[in-house]
Amino acid sequence: MLEDKNPQRTSLEELGEFGLIEHLTQNFELHQPSSKMGIGDDAAVLDFDSKKTIVSTDMLVEGVHFDLSYTPLKHLGYKSVMVNLSDIYAMNAMATQVTVSIAVSNRFPLEALEEFYAGVAAACKRYHIDLVGGDTTSSNKGMLISVTALGIADEDEIVYRDGAKTNDLLVVTGDLGGAYLGLQVLEREKEVFKVNPENQPDLEPYSYIVERQLKPEARKDIVELLKKLEVKPTSMIDISDGLSSEILHLCKRSNVGCNLFEDKIPLDPTVISTSEEFQMDSTMIALGGGEDYELLFTIDQADFPKIKANPNLTVIGHMTQKSEGAHLITRAETKIPLTAQGWNSFNG
Amino acid sequence: MLEDKNPQRTSLEELGEFGLIEHLTQNFELHQPSSKMGIGDDAAVLDFDSKKTIVSTDMLVEGVHFDLSYTPLKHLGYKSVMVNLSDIYAMNAMATQVTVSIAVSNRFPLEALEEFYAGVAAACKRYHIDLVGGDTTSSNKGMLISVTALGIADEDEIVYRDGAKTNDLLVVTGDLGGAYLGLQVLEREKEVFKVNPENQPDLEPYSYIVERQLKPEARKDIVELLKKLEVKPTSMIDISDGLSSEILHLCKRSNVGCNLFEDKIPLDPTVISTSEEFQMDSTMIALGGGEDYELLFTIDQADFPKIKANPNLTVIGHMTQKSEGAHLITRAETKIPLTAQGWNSFNG
Repeated sequence: MLEDKNPQRTSLEELGEFGLIEHLTQNFELHQPSSKMGIGDDAAVLDFDSKKTIVSTDMLVEGVHFDLSYTPLKHLGYKSVMVNLSDIYAMNAMATQVTVSIAVSNRFPLEALEEFYAGVAAACKRYHIDLVGGDTTSSNKGMLISVTALGIADEDEIVYRDGAKTNDLLVVTGDLGGAYLGLQVLEREKEVFKVNPENQPDLEPYSYIVERQLKPEARKDIVELLKKLEVKPTSMIDISDGLSSEILHLCKRSNVGCNLFEDKIPLDPTVISTSEEFQMDSTMIALGGGEDYELLFTIDQADFPKIKANPNLTVIGHMTQKSEGAHLITRAETKIPLTAQGWNSFNG
Repeated sequence: MLEDKNPQRTSLEELGEFGLIEHLTQNFELHQPSSKMGIGDDAAVLDFDSKKTIVSTDMLVEGVHFDLSYTPLKHLGYKSVMVNLSDIYAMNAMATQVTVSIAVSNRFPLEALEEFYAGVAAACKRYHIDLVGGDTTSSNKGMLISVTALGIADEDEIVYRDGAKTNDLLVVTGDLGGAYLGLQVLEREKEVFKVNPENQPDLEPYSYIVERQLKPEARKDIVELLKKLEVKPTSMIDISDGLSSEILHLCKRSNVGCNLFEDKIPLDPTVISTSEEFQMDSTMIALGGGEDYELLFTIDQADFPKIKANPNLTVIGHMTQKSEGAHLITRAETKIPLTAQGWNSFNG
């Protein structure tokens, strides 16, 4: 696949490790006032002044987290940054810098890595963050990406997972399940392609959910919106492993229970129609799907008037006493205990 | 190998990804006043007050950077942290936190990862740093480690690579070449073991250089010493890729040349004797060997009296006009141009 798209191939040996990182990052400029020194010395130097520093790190492994047979490298670079920024925004903080490290085998031509870094650059530009470090190395097999994101916040702005109180409203941004279903569509097309390589897939009807999978956006806008609305969530987490798993994290850390209402879970029409096509239950997909990178948070009921008119925010439930447990209240008004169906990369 | 040492085997599937990181980090406590929140939320929260934040990141790949057939996992955990702390100290800064991510295949039992994290814990304890984040994930093949280190410094303390001036003295800490020769000894024993698994290697004569390879120490003590001596280097870098390569980095970034004197390069007696045994030139090993994690820096000549009595510091040359280039002055007083022989992980 890479060969078709990149007729020009420059081998990584030609550049060597030192030349490579310089080459790949030469067009990255520093824009954040806090970035004093980026790539080029032993370490980056940042000036966060009186702000608190927020740090998060994630790894993405080929064959586990992504499949290069249908993931454009530019999208992969973009998504690698998004996954980490999402964690910073989930602290109600603003992301400021990232470091991006990659391990690849020599089978990758330089042009492929340039594509990857073009995606990193697009993410940096759109989210106003600086690339300030990284490492490139060879790997015996496959590609592996490690990103660390840094951000800033005033101490009183930071939102942890442990502040939810009984009767707080549970709010989610955007809509859920799209990224998971997008992956199902891509996997199906991959199988079709194996059988008939001449087949041209028509992904147009699935463009929304495929984009949710391949090029998710971190919800920086929500952190800005909440500030504008003067709402500080009592707890917050990002949805990387599925709604159910994240709700249970908030409940456990905050020592509360939760009632989640099935009919309130926001679903895009494409998610509903594609669920039917795959004969899957759309609620189960939203609960267990993962990779939507939306934000899930709780607010005091007194803040409800400030958020109720906003199309980006949906109240999907409320927190209860811990002793009541965490439940899904179905459309049929039955009460089902929530279980963590977060994606477990050590299974299978 | 792992099986022999760890009769107890708990599979990673039993714990799952969420349980795993909690299990592995449960005994890590936060000691740094700047660590406000460590593992357990979407991101760590750090308070560096008015200090500058220093950030560095490195990847270590099985089969490229380490060989598990002779690298104890505890040592590997320790070394992974050292490699990154070394970059922070090379900025004349103090390391304060690390994040440690690992990708491993399911063939690793839990007990192996516990060994690795025991090494991380030993490094954190000895260097007074906190583990504040990380990610554990599965990998299709082999082990991969990504560490990001954070540190602090006052703005006027930070030393970059670009401040060396003509006539500055070039100073190195400790001694060189040991880590590379230690690797040669370990590789030789591995080959012997392949032929005769009953053979018990006697590594005792090589204990110094084997330890330099398997369990290097980052030179935090030098940063503290320089402060005590009231010496601020004009430029500094750590020696990860070999003396020659690092000198050329300082020359290039500082726009100067350099004369390095062969007879001044500090070598441990074990390095000299083992070089002879391997029929290698000890100077070439010091120049190109790498992985010693010593510090290389330049100082103004006026500071020489402050450092001259210290056994940890050796003046090995001086900086010149850029037009003079960078040279090794041999014992025979011939002048040989320095070339980067830094280790290139994309070759071979």
